[in-house]
Amino acid sequence: MNQREITLSGHIIDSLILPKALDIIMDQGGEFKIYEFDVGIRKSDISTARIIVSADSPKLLNNILDELSEIGASISEIKEVKLLKSPKDKVLPTDFYSTTNHTTHVLYDMDWLLVENIEMDCMIIIDKENKKATCKTISKVKKGDLIVVGREGIKVTPPQRPRGKKGVFEFMNSDVSSEKPLKSTIKSIANEIKEIKENDGKIAIVGGPAIVHTGSAYLLSDMIKFGFVDYLFAGNALATHDIENALYGTSLGVCINTGNVVNKGHRNHIMAINEINRQGSIKNAVENGVLKKGIMYECIKNNVSFVLAGSIRDDGPLPDVITDSIQAQEIIREYSHDVDMVIMIATMLHSIATGNIIPSNVKSICVDINPSAVTKLADRGSAQVISIVTDIGTFLPLLYQELTKK
Amino acid sequence: MNQREITLSGHIIDSLILPKALDIIMDQGGEFKIYEFDVGIRKSDISTARIIVSADSPKLLNNILDELSEIGASISEIKEVKLLKSPKDKVLPTDFYSTTNHTTHVLYDMDWLLVENIEMDCMIIIDKENKKATCKTISKVKKGDLIVVGREGIKVTPPQRPRGKKGVFEFMNSDVSSEKPLKSTIKSIANEIKEIKENDGKIAIVGGPAIVHTGSAYLLSDMIKFGFVDYLFAGNALATHDIENALYGTSLGVCINTGNVVNKGHRNHIMAINEINRQGSIKNAVENGVLKKGIMYECIKNNVSFVLAGSIRDDGPLPDVITDSIQAQEIIREYSHDVDMVIMIATMLHSIATGNIIPSNVKSICVDINPSAVTKLADRGSAQVISIVTDIGTFLPLLYQELTKK
Amino acid sequence: MNQREITLSGHIIDSLILPKALDIIMDQGGEFKIYEFDVGIRKSDISTARIIVSADSPKLLNNILDELSEIGASISEIKEVKLLKSPKDKVLPTDFYSTTNHTTHVLYDMDWLLVENIEMDCMIIIDKENKKATCKTISKVKKGDLIVVGREGIKVTPPQRPRGKKGVFEFMNSDVSSEKPLKSTIKSIANEIKEIKENDGKIAIVGGPAIVHTGSAYLLSDMIKFGFVDYLFAGNALATHDIENALYGTSLGVCINTGNVVNKGHRNHIMAINEINRQGSIKNAVENGVLKKGIMYECIKNNVSFVLAGSIRDDGPLPDVITDSIQAQEIIREYSHDVDMVIMIATMLHSIATGNIIPSNVKSICVDINPSAVTKLADRGSAQVISIVTDIGTFLPLLYQELTKK
Amino acid sequence: MNQREITLSGHIIDSLILPKALDIIMDQGGEFKIYEFDVGIRKSDISTARIIVSADSPKLLNNILDELSEIGASISEIKEVKLLKSPKDKVLPTDFYSTTNHTTHVLYDMDWLLVENIEMDCMIIIDKENKKATCKTISKVKKGDLIVVGREGIKVTPPQRPRGKKGVFEFMNSDVSSEKPLKSTIKSIANEIKEIKENDGKIAIVGGPAIVHTGSAYLLSDMIKFGFVDYLFAGNALATHDIENALYGTSLGVCINTGNVVNKGHRNHIMAINEINRQGSIKNAVENGVLKKGIMYECIKNNVSFVLAGSIRDDGPLPDVITDSIQAQEIIREYSHDVDMVIMIATMLHSIATGNIIPSNVKSICVDINPSAVTKLADRGSAQVISIVTDIGTFLPLLYQELTKK
Repeated sequence: MNQREITLSGHIIDSLILPKALDIIMDQGGEFKIYEFDVGIRKSDISTARIIVSADSPKLLNNILDELSEIGASISEIKEVKLLKSPKDKVLPTDFYSTTNHTTHVLYDMDWLLVENIEMDCMIIIDKENKKATCKTISKVKKGDLIVVGREGIKVTPPQRPRGKKGVFEFMNSDVSSEKPLKSTIKSIANEIKEIKENDGKIAIVGGPAIVHTGSAYLLSDMIKFGFVDYLFAGNALATHDIENALYGTSLGVCINTGNVVNKGHRNHIMAINEINRQGSIKNAVENGVLKKGIMYECIKNNVSFVLAGSIRDDGPLPDVITDSIQAQEIIREYSHDVDMVIMIATMLHSIATGNIIPSNVKSICVDINPSAVTKLADRGSAQVISIVTDIGTFLPLLYQELTKK
Repeated sequence: MNQREITLSGHIIDSLILPKALDIIMDQGGEFKIYEFDVGIRKSDISTARIIVSADSPKLLNNILDELSEIGASISEIKEVKLLKSPKDKVLPTDFYSTTNHTTHVLYDMDWLLVENIEMDCMIIIDKENKKATCKTISKVKKGDLIVVGREGIKVTPPQRPRGKKGVFEFMNSDVSSEKPLKSTIKSIANEIKEIKENDGKIAIVGGPAIVHTGSAYLLSDMIKFGFVDYLFAGNALATHDIENALYGTSLGVCINTGNVVNKGHRNHIMAINEINRQGSIKNAVENGVLKKGIMYECIKNNVSFVLAGSIRDDGPLPDVITDSIQAQEIIREYSHDVDMVIMIATMLHSIATGNIIPSNVKSICVDINPSAVTKLADRGSAQVISIVTDIGTFLPLLYQELTKK
Repeated sequence: MNQREITLSGHIIDSLILPKALDIIMDQGGEFKIYEFDVGIRKSDISTARIIVSADSPKLLNNILDELSEIGASISEIKEVKLLKSPKDKVLPTDFYSTTNHTTHVLYDMDWLLVENIEMDCMIIIDKENKKATCKTISKVKKGDLIVVGREGIKVTPPQRPRGKKGVFEFMNSDVSSEKPLKSTIKSIANEIKEIKENDGKIAIVGGPAIVHTGSAYLLSDMIKFGFVDYLFAGNALATHDIENALYGTSLGVCINTGNVVNKGHRNHIMAINEINRQGSIKNAVENGVLKKGIMYECIKNNVSFVLAGSIRDDGPLPDVITDSIQAQEIIREYSHDVDMVIMIATMLHSIATGNIIPSNVKSICVDINPSAVTKLADRGSAQVISIVTDIGTFLPLLYQELTKK
Repeated sequence: MNQREITLSGHIIDSLILPKALDIIMDQGGEFKIYEFDVGIRKSDISTARIIVSADSPKLLNNILDELSEIGASISEIKEVKLLKSPKDKVLPTDFYSTTNHTTHVLYDMDWLLVENIEMDCMIIIDKENKKATCKTISKVKKGDLIVVGREGIKVTPPQRPRGKKGVFEFMNSDVSSEKPLKSTIKSIANEIKEIKENDGKIAIVGGPAIVHTGSAYLLSDMIKFGFVDYLFAGNALATHDIENALYGTSLGVCINTGNVVNKGHRNHIMAINEINRQGSIKNAVENGVLKKGIMYECIKNNVSFVLAGSIRDDGPLPDVITDSIQAQEIIREYSHDVDMVIMIATMLHSIATGNIIPSNVKSICVDINPSAVTKLADRGSAQVISIVTDIGTFLPLLYQELTKK
């Protein structure tokens, strides 16, 4: 008989874990029998369901259990994780386990090891000596690495919907409507930011050049100056146009104060790159007194780490840009382990890149005027992201007002 | 020989009149000979070109002259307008002249009559007795009306691009990009509004319910209270949700202050309609002390004329709504003759309706987060409209700040 | 003690009824005790939960029960519906019950009466004599009508997610992504249409003028001719441009075959209106041999009922247009009672209007290139609508190919 | 006196060169005197205008002349280009000339040299020995390179609007409306493609992963197989999902045939990368019989050169991906010199990258469902691109039908 007992435990009804589990079983063509169901009587209680899953074939049963494990079902008769060696650099055993972005443990040598640096679409590597489990991307896998395969001994814990008072992250669903009152949302976000900073948490901004084009660079500069930002992830364009704006008052040749196209303005971003090339780096430009304000200036002055990742559409690029995309990704990855909140502003490419990397318990917000930017983020699995469809040229002033309000 | 002499006069080079004229002739398959070209030597001068247009057939020549007349070419050998009687109510002679939204004169009985109430896609009717030319929609044409046909004796004057210092209306093209600095644009619009009001000009707001949904009703209310608004053109939804908001603090059941869906909130807009139905009208509700704030309240208190036009998606509607769409259109038309500026906010239906009616010299602005709203307006001929792609929930606070700044 | 027992029954776990119920209770600040939970052991079984709901005040308890009743919870100790008389035409008792678009029964005089013509945001009126319950809009309420108030004796049955083989309506969620394979979706829709027609079901098309602008009028014409369409809900614009296209080969002056703007093309839609005005009606134009093809022609020829609802942006309008929006709404409402499927194509206004009217068990599809059109529909409560973000100019040819495939 | 004579020659009226020139002079605050104007009397004739430009200061005069030279004005008293040496690798003299994407000549040593590999936002480098002028990006500039500065001796020739019969590239303006008839546009594009291939021209496809997600990979595969494609510029995502689709029938885990999410589908794209990693390269996978169909398969089989450019959002990436973005850009640049037409499909990043590189006389088309993708391309200077807002999942089948029609 192809059957197996699973246990679901937690706020499994109101976090939709139980319905999702039954859905999975039925969608795949399996059968279930709930033989024990201990319902949380009150809202502080935890519920537990013990379910027998059965299927026509061992393969189907495995498929079902595999999916169940991803939503947090634990298989009652716990076995240890199975491991296979990588046959070659960057090559995985066929049955490799592909991670989610939720907190994950593996049962190895009688211990539940927390998988470090969890990230979606990665592999779990076991370090036998130190009894450590770590998440690695396929490109980092080395020949001989011990890789978790199959579905045994893996426990996934998705974020559970908290009861009681809700913040903006619990209240909002991933709604992309532009017809909602924003004032209260902006206020809530400002409060979350302040709370994180009061607890010495860390905040990363992921930003596109539209921050500069829309005349909002001075607001982000001030947010950096006042200590609200710990990391900046961006591309050559944001830095170039920020410096163009700081040096010449334009962004892509458009005067930020008047909105007019200036004479020979299209030269200005190349002039900005030229100036930084002459200085050798953005840091030199700040230290030599050439660059005196703006987003990049404040990053240098306030020791905010930044990653400028190269892309094929770059002019220049600036000497500070990391042109190798995988190397840039690695640095973003490293910084992200440290981060409590990510605010993604008007940049689809960098938002999806960061969304891919951060675990599901990092608070993340995506602000874009284009609803499809937000849809794409959700389609790629970053379902936990709060999406706000609005104009950043008007959103940032209002956020800034809330942040600096006494 | 099928040929005719036309004269172009004015800033015909920098307003693109001359190139457009030559384009039309060539596109249609005609030929031209420029036999006199008196170029404005300095920027204050006027240029004049005299051109012989020729074509293979009288029909083609007429087609060409017809199009040329719409961009302001005057046919040198001026003839009087031709008139034909309408054979039946709402029925036109086949060769009727269809108006543009530019200032238009007709040569009748030796006089150049200004066509009153000019509006696109209408007919010109001559009142012989009073020697008046008036614009009428097809639905207003009565049997026996004298209708201008053909293309003789009609002079169209499109707005010419002014030289020297430019305001926001001259500077901006109908650009729908959301990647432009908005601060300076908002400032310019605020200055235009203040200037119009200082000169006792009149301003109409055309608004959709998103003004209320996004929590901006109090800003528009204050703009009305402080005298910036003379007319409000809207639908049942704006008024209903404004009243819902004033009475119960919600819009479509969403609390404006918190952004949360409230208990039984979906009843609230019906409750608002019910309350006004009980009072008999919005005015009664204000006078009876039931309605104490909001957009509609301020309209009543400050004698701002409003038109609430019905649509098939209306709940209720409120007793003040004009359910017959053509009747509502007529009242908007009448009010529009008086207006110097129209600001269209987050309503495609009402914006296109108003855009169809107003002449090309009324300053008009369309604000919407959806670029296609703006594209549609332009596709329907309202090319003179300044388009701003932004979030009204963040745009209105910033406009209001500029308007109330000392 | 403020407490009450409710019963949930059906596929309450996988249709998410149980989690939603617990959510509602907790969100409102109530408490619950599940004292009986009979879980459906197998997928064909029904589950039943009996829950004691308690709250701090009778008002809060009522609020909670009110919301629970909307998702299908039945209050165990069933009482009859309470009725109050309308004090005045179009005026409701304060505690009126506002309907959902789900199948609804009321317990009146010991019988569970099905509420006829159910529609969201309406009132339930009881006809004592004939023991009938009917849905009415507020504008149809007459002084003395017996209106259901409070929440007792009302049973709502939302559509339950069916198990086993799923069609397109069960499979798809209201997803607005344009990055999904459409071929299979179009095929499924074509199959649903064919199945409905084989069972003598009725299909309504709700269409905007973009059907004509994009050159797809001939496809919709053929769909009407081949019997796939029973009702057409549209506005003046669709009919005018369809007739413009049939008579002159253009839509808004753009040649459908070449995409070029034609000479004097902007006159063409007025010429089309003029021609129908001359004939007196579209029907006359068809019978007199003036109108020989197109969407409206096929409607006349195939006795497809159409509603052309007026709007304030209309030119003309055509004599067949119902300019009173509430009158037009009533006719759409009447026709809708009969309909099994609604396909909404490129028209936000008419789609929302129809979406407001149809019950939740009518299969409905909304096709638009603009994701916000779809979001707005969902925001307004028409959650059951399948949304497809695509270009109708390319979607309709592919749908037509599937429909006519042997 | 600060004045200078310029000459404009060509179809300067109907290509709008003359009005633009006068505009520039007036906008900058200069004065002009047209002292000779030889108008092309007939449509085949060329017009010539000789204009004296004057300004208050030499600086202003230079600014004006600078802008005039970009639209094709030639300064009557021709001087040779001025050259300055680069002081350091990647550093330019302050007054460097920044290129447009139009055909450009420089007067050097009495000869008008054609600037090779013209591309916007680059510098012109003179090779004294070989008397050659070449375009270089700032990052390629070496210490000692002779760089063109100022505005003397530079002649720019923008594409002129041809008279007579127009193809799709002449007819269409950069219009982003989705309300236009597409059938005729698709037909015209198909004809242009066929004509280019008949004349042994080269066509590049720039494609995003949505080609695979929407189920259109097989169409692009066939276009490659049948010889319509010479180059493919894409990213890791297109190749990965194409291979995922070829090996497992899914794209991002969604089954292409049914549109359903498949079991463990999110592993599939990593499995695809794993398989290619195991083989060592896409080419090996084809040669070893592992990869048997799809876009990448056809590229290998038909010797179509492809560039897979890395980005920070990449999983993997595939071993064939060039992770250094500047290196990838260089290869795209090299291939682009050879290309007659570029078709950009559903990829903003790669489209902007390619749009930046290609000269203005390459026929280019951008197809995207998102109007903002197209707006951004135009904002960044690629004004010559024909933009089509449509759904590629429905567009590609119709294009393919036209291409393969006899």
